[in-house]
Amino acid sequence: MSKGEGKYSTIHYQKYLQIEELLSAQQLRSGALGDPAHEEMLFIIVHQVYELWFKQVIHELESVIEFFEDNEIIESSLSVAIGRLNRVQKILQLLVKQIGIMETMTPLDFLDFRSYLFPASGFQSFQFRAIECLLGLPEEQRLTYFGQKYSSVFTKDKQKTLDDIYKKGTLLDKVNDWLERTPFLNLDGFDFLEEYRGALTAMLNKETEAIMSSEYLTDKQKKMRSEMVGSSDTYFRSILDEDTHNNLLKENKKRLSYKATVAALFINLYREEPILQLPFQFITCLIDIDNEVTNWRHRHAQMVLRMIGNKIGTGGSSGHSYLAKTASLHQIYTDFHGISSLLIPRSELPLLPDNIRDQLNFYFTAKKA
Amino acid sequence: MSKGEGKYSTIHYQKYLQIEELLSAQQLRSGALGDPAHEEMLFIIVHQVYELWFKQVIHELESVIEFFEDNEIIESSLSVAIGRLNRVQKILQLLVKQIGIMETMTPLDFLDFRSYLFPASGFQSFQFRAIECLLGLPEEQRLTYFGQKYSSVFTKDKQKTLDDIYKKGTLLDKVNDWLERTPFLNLDGFDFLEEYRGALTAMLNKETEAIMSSEYLTDKQKKMRSEMVGSSDTYFRSILDEDTHNNLLKENKKRLSYKATVAALFINLYREEPILQLPFQFITCLIDIDNEVTNWRHRHAQMVLRMIGNKIGTGGSSGHSYLAKTASLHQIYTDFHGISSLLIPRSELPLLPDNIRDQLNFYFTAKKA
Amino acid sequence: MSKGEGKYSTIHYQKYLQIEELLSAQQLRSGALGDPAHEEMLFIIVHQVYELWFKQVIHELESVIEFFEDNEIIESSLSVAIGRLNRVQKILQLLVKQIGIMETMTPLDFLDFRSYLFPASGFQSFQFRAIECLLGLPEEQRLTYFGQKYSSVFTKDKQKTLDDIYKKGTLLDKVNDWLERTPFLNLDGFDFLEEYRGALTAMLNKETEAIMSSEYLTDKQKKMRSEMVGSSDTYFRSILDEDTHNNLLKENKKRLSYKATVAALFINLYREEPILQLPFQFITCLIDIDNEVTNWRHRHAQMVLRMIGNKIGTGGSSGHSYLAKTASLHQIYTDFHGISSLLIPRSELPLLPDNIRDQLNFYFTAKKA
Amino acid sequence: MSKGEGKYSTIHYQKYLQIEELLSAQQLRSGALGDPAHEEMLFIIVHQVYELWFKQVIHELESVIEFFEDNEIIESSLSVAIGRLNRVQKILQLLVKQIGIMETMTPLDFLDFRSYLFPASGFQSFQFRAIECLLGLPEEQRLTYFGQKYSSVFTKDKQKTLDDIYKKGTLLDKVNDWLERTPFLNLDGFDFLEEYRGALTAMLNKETEAIMSSEYLTDKQKKMRSEMVGSSDTYFRSILDEDTHNNLLKENKKRLSYKATVAALFINLYREEPILQLPFQFITCLIDIDNEVTNWRHRHAQMVLRMIGNKIGTGGSSGHSYLAKTASLHQIYTDFHGISSLLIPRSELPLLPDNIRDQLNFYFTAKKA
Repeated sequence: MSKGEGKYSTIHYQKYLQIEELLSAQQLRSGALGDPAHEEMLFIIVHQVYELWFKQVIHELESVIEFFEDNEIIESSLSVAIGRLNRVQKILQLLVKQIGIMETMTPLDFLDFRSYLFPASGFQSFQFRAIECLLGLPEEQRLTYFGQKYSSVFTKDKQKTLDDIYKKGTLLDKVNDWLERTPFLNLDGFDFLEEYRGALTAMLNKETEAIMSSEYLTDKQKKMRSEMVGSSDTYFRSILDEDTHNNLLKENKKRLSYKATVAALFINLYREEPILQLPFQFITCLIDIDNEVTNWRHRHAQMVLRMIGNKIGTGGSSGHSYLAKTASLHQIYTDFHGISSLLIPRSELPLLPDNIRDQLNFYFTAKKA
Repeated sequence: MSKGEGKYSTIHYQKYLQIEELLSAQQLRSGALGDPAHEEMLFIIVHQVYELWFKQVIHELESVIEFFEDNEIIESSLSVAIGRLNRVQKILQLLVKQIGIMETMTPLDFLDFRSYLFPASGFQSFQFRAIECLLGLPEEQRLTYFGQKYSSVFTKDKQKTLDDIYKKGTLLDKVNDWLERTPFLNLDGFDFLEEYRGALTAMLNKETEAIMSSEYLTDKQKKMRSEMVGSSDTYFRSILDEDTHNNLLKENKKRLSYKATVAALFINLYREEPILQLPFQFITCLIDIDNEVTNWRHRHAQMVLRMIGNKIGTGGSSGHSYLAKTASLHQIYTDFHGISSLLIPRSELPLLPDNIRDQLNFYFTAKKA
Repeated sequence: MSKGEGKYSTIHYQKYLQIEELLSAQQLRSGALGDPAHEEMLFIIVHQVYELWFKQVIHELESVIEFFEDNEIIESSLSVAIGRLNRVQKILQLLVKQIGIMETMTPLDFLDFRSYLFPASGFQSFQFRAIECLLGLPEEQRLTYFGQKYSSVFTKDKQKTLDDIYKKGTLLDKVNDWLERTPFLNLDGFDFLEEYRGALTAMLNKETEAIMSSEYLTDKQKKMRSEMVGSSDTYFRSILDEDTHNNLLKENKKRLSYKATVAALFINLYREEPILQLPFQFITCLIDIDNEVTNWRHRHAQMVLRMIGNKIGTGGSSGHSYLAKTASLHQIYTDFHGISSLLIPRSELPLLPDNIRDQLNFYFTAKKA
Repeated sequence: MSKGEGKYSTIHYQKYLQIEELLSAQQLRSGALGDPAHEEMLFIIVHQVYELWFKQVIHELESVIEFFEDNEIIESSLSVAIGRLNRVQKILQLLVKQIGIMETMTPLDFLDFRSYLFPASGFQSFQFRAIECLLGLPEEQRLTYFGQKYSSVFTKDKQKTLDDIYKKGTLLDKVNDWLERTPFLNLDGFDFLEEYRGALTAMLNKETEAIMSSEYLTDKQKKMRSEMVGSSDTYFRSILDEDTHNNLLKENKKRLSYKATVAALFINLYREEPILQLPFQFITCLIDIDNEVTNWRHRHAQMVLRMIGNKIGTGGSSGHSYLAKTASLHQIYTDFHGISSLLIPRSELPLLPDNIRDQLNFYFTAKKA
């Protein structure tokens, strides 16, 4: 608390928001070098706005990770965490839309000051890297650019800060652990995975029978459709096999552990049970954020192509094509998308035994029933 | 140019964008006073982002006003001006959308630090007032809040800066003068207003005749519809009368001079003639910006209602109801909306004589013809 | 089920979506009358898209109302209801954005076919009125247009359908009843209202003391700020008084009953307790939808002004000014906004007794504790 | 004109918009088969809205192509064409946003009726294919899906309609021809390409000299930066070579002819000359539309991944990965992006001789000067 400040000391908007400091941080390099370019102001402000929002995103992500710190998340924290991730998603949507403002600068306008910026680059945004780390983008999954590690453009101190995020545990790590702790997969005699496998077999059998006895299908169609059912069967079996899963983990094609994946499936299927409603919303938030980051990468690559074309650089790769690749390859929460292929229709879903349903309900409701 | 800087000195993203200064300008007052509120960060960053964008908007508006400085705008400047006003519109759209991020803070969250902010208020944003002035919001049109002049919350210096904007001429002033200079309203024997009045009379007569001889209308309907035509006639006459117009100007119900209004009508009607295409786009930009500022005021009022309700303050008026009123009363370019009621269908439009059409065409095309 | 159809009969996109019927429903009246106007297609399609989305909104609202039919909403239904209201909000946001497409038609373009449309009008959209009714806009709150009841433009049959919505109970009615049934306001010796009043008094007293003993305030400031506290006190007392509330209900200035209002306040204050999390989300959805409808009205009025200006019609009122008024006067869920002024900071909130907290928790969690 | 219809016959909103026909075209297949799924309504309406907008887009694209039919576009048509392409872009933006509404249906909800739809698929949308053809997506550039030609799912009649679009000339074809007709590339002794090449050489030489004599660069840096200049030189030369260009055309890596490309470069560089302002806007519209279609493809692929996961089908390829590939490979106007790499800063741009500048100016202005 600075001297002379207290709850009832008054404060002015300009001072509170440090407007003066804020508005004196735009130094046009084209101006300093004697040839002021009108459009450089936009370039600076767009990037500064990005950095301010990045700070906010980091503020939210760190706070959400903290909720999971104690290996036990309190129910009320989950609703707060969802609120904060929703906010992150909204901020990311704004950042995507903001690219449209950058695009009001035409490539010719950009040339008025582009040469002064060398070699400053968006790759040097520390906060953007920190967001990637906090979300859980694994080091080994990152594309290299000109063969350099992504963090090599930063000071040692900053590199350590990024490393520490991984050491402390990313959001992905924390979510994995939290899912693994789900107590309902094997409770009071109810074995979710066994029930699910049984339902799956029954469903696929019923499907095959219905196809074979259908009056609408020709023999050729029957063959084709029952082969589709067969391939679904193979698919499901491979997914539900723990060894197969662990091999995919080793090959870096999966992120969530086997147990966490099964828990995520359980939450998806029984999402309407009271105690699973917020966990389901939480998982949905993670997918939304992942998609929004991907949208941003896609639009960013598009903007770079528009601005400087697809000229191959001295390093043999263009900025645009590198960026475009990260859009698909730097996705983080793909395992949650994978859950979609494991879902079965509600009508085929194993009913939960009453004692389990009570466990998933509110005290007030369960008691009354 | 700082010492040691030159075109080929290199520069880093962090230094170029003054990231350090930028990211150290968020001082949570709740933190300084011993009770850190998570949500205060959002409050600060949202406002800072607004101020950065305001700086950009001012940068663009000032540059557009400058184009009109010499009483003669060069054709190439008009296309640049349109590009910059389009950008302003896009920024304003982003600012409207940004309100949705502020709304992720719930009223209860806001209470965690609201009391520390007293009496800082958005009314104290100097840049927002500067934008209103640059666009041309007249002093006499402003609602007062608690009976105080809008600029009384600023230092004398800042008040003078605002006054100087009016003295130098607002965008509205410059546009009015530019419209008045339109050379085509009375050129080489072509008198636009006379032609327009003639077409109007012919159109309304034809309309009345068609109604009276229609086989589809009952007598009652004929009476009603021909009365509607009559009232249109009265309306058009009043609008086109210079004395009536000047009286409305005195009563502060109009902003554009009579001559500028007629020019704006001309541009609207013959917008497809080459020399009028960009002027028409320019006028459309002004309407778009005015609408977007209004949208922002509307959404801002809505957000304040959601955040603190409609509690009547000690001054007898609520923040929300004041803000809601400004949405309709602080519109600036309403005269351009008014043009819509003066338009007549293309089929009734007086044809331009060939020598006038040539004047409005490109040299290359006119020469060839 | 049409003859020959079954689960394994195949179906084509074109037939399933009735594309042929859909795409043959755009008859340009300007074309039929011999003078095809290019822009009329946009006019028709924009309105048809609106009507398709209206059908979807009605589909969702009716299903949500149904959940409340049995005077007992099942917990799992609440999460489904929230999902559907979220969808309604997203559709409304799209409808607001869609106005920008209509605005690509300029006023002059509209004149090419406007005269053919008389007297068809958006006022004649039955589905839009049905949505207003389903949400709960009370008949007595509606502005009249030229003195006519809003439903007079419809056939008797359709008028009856609208009346039946009110008879069956609107979403507002159902929500009011549901809130009144909240069991936790007076449970096992816990009296929420008494606790809340006590906390309020303590908070305001503490505030006054802090002001009077502050070293940062002048005497004049102390007087002003303690008067503000006093006026807050008066305000809270009036709101919490049942008779005052009932009088406001009679004057049509409130919609929710006293009991429902207190329940909404309780849910807002203790939203993080597990059993209140979804009810809080549900109320937030209602506010969001109300705001989005208002945004649509505002933008619609703005578009009409742009398109046809503010010409006063024979009835003495302009389309634009009528529409602009409905934006503020046809809001439905204003009582929920009012809750914001009743909130008190978390630090002042009465702690819930353990036995009450258990009641609000999950069975699994409460049992463990 | 139907019997009894005339300008002064009146018309009702419901009849004009064929609301009854429109709202009876949603037949839930799940309902017809005895097991109504609430969410199927959304599925139908989302797709029907898409088809209505597609009809509008086709209406606009066809009208724009028509403007170019006569091998001579009238200046006023260009401004109308730009207005219509702007509208197409806005519609596409809405369609992108609309995907967010589809995503409110969760994968589990989709399973409630998914099996009934087989084998109907979005691939069967005829209008979407028509839009791709009208824009100019070449047959040979299309990805095949399970080895089938994209149009094989349609009737012979419809296949012919698509073929006819190519025969009549796509928008890309028309634009190419129009660019080739640009008269200013070689006019009255001014040879644009020669001037441009000269400026390029001068610029690169100046750049190299500045680098070599810089006091800020180390020897290593000087070497690296002058190599970059050298590679730019090579790049420019290859692009500006007609034979190289024609080879790329043959390899299907270019779409625009050499002459059209040079014209597009000229328009980009001298866009502020009055006669080039609208052509520049027109080209920008094409880039915007191309980007927006790409955004739609990207978001659509993302939505499919979310809905059904990345399960490999019997054909060996997943729906998602096919769709994701089209996002990058089905872009049409990439040659215009390529122009960006050919631009040179305004300060290096060859000045146009006065007689040329007059040719590019308005008659009124040129005459006065």
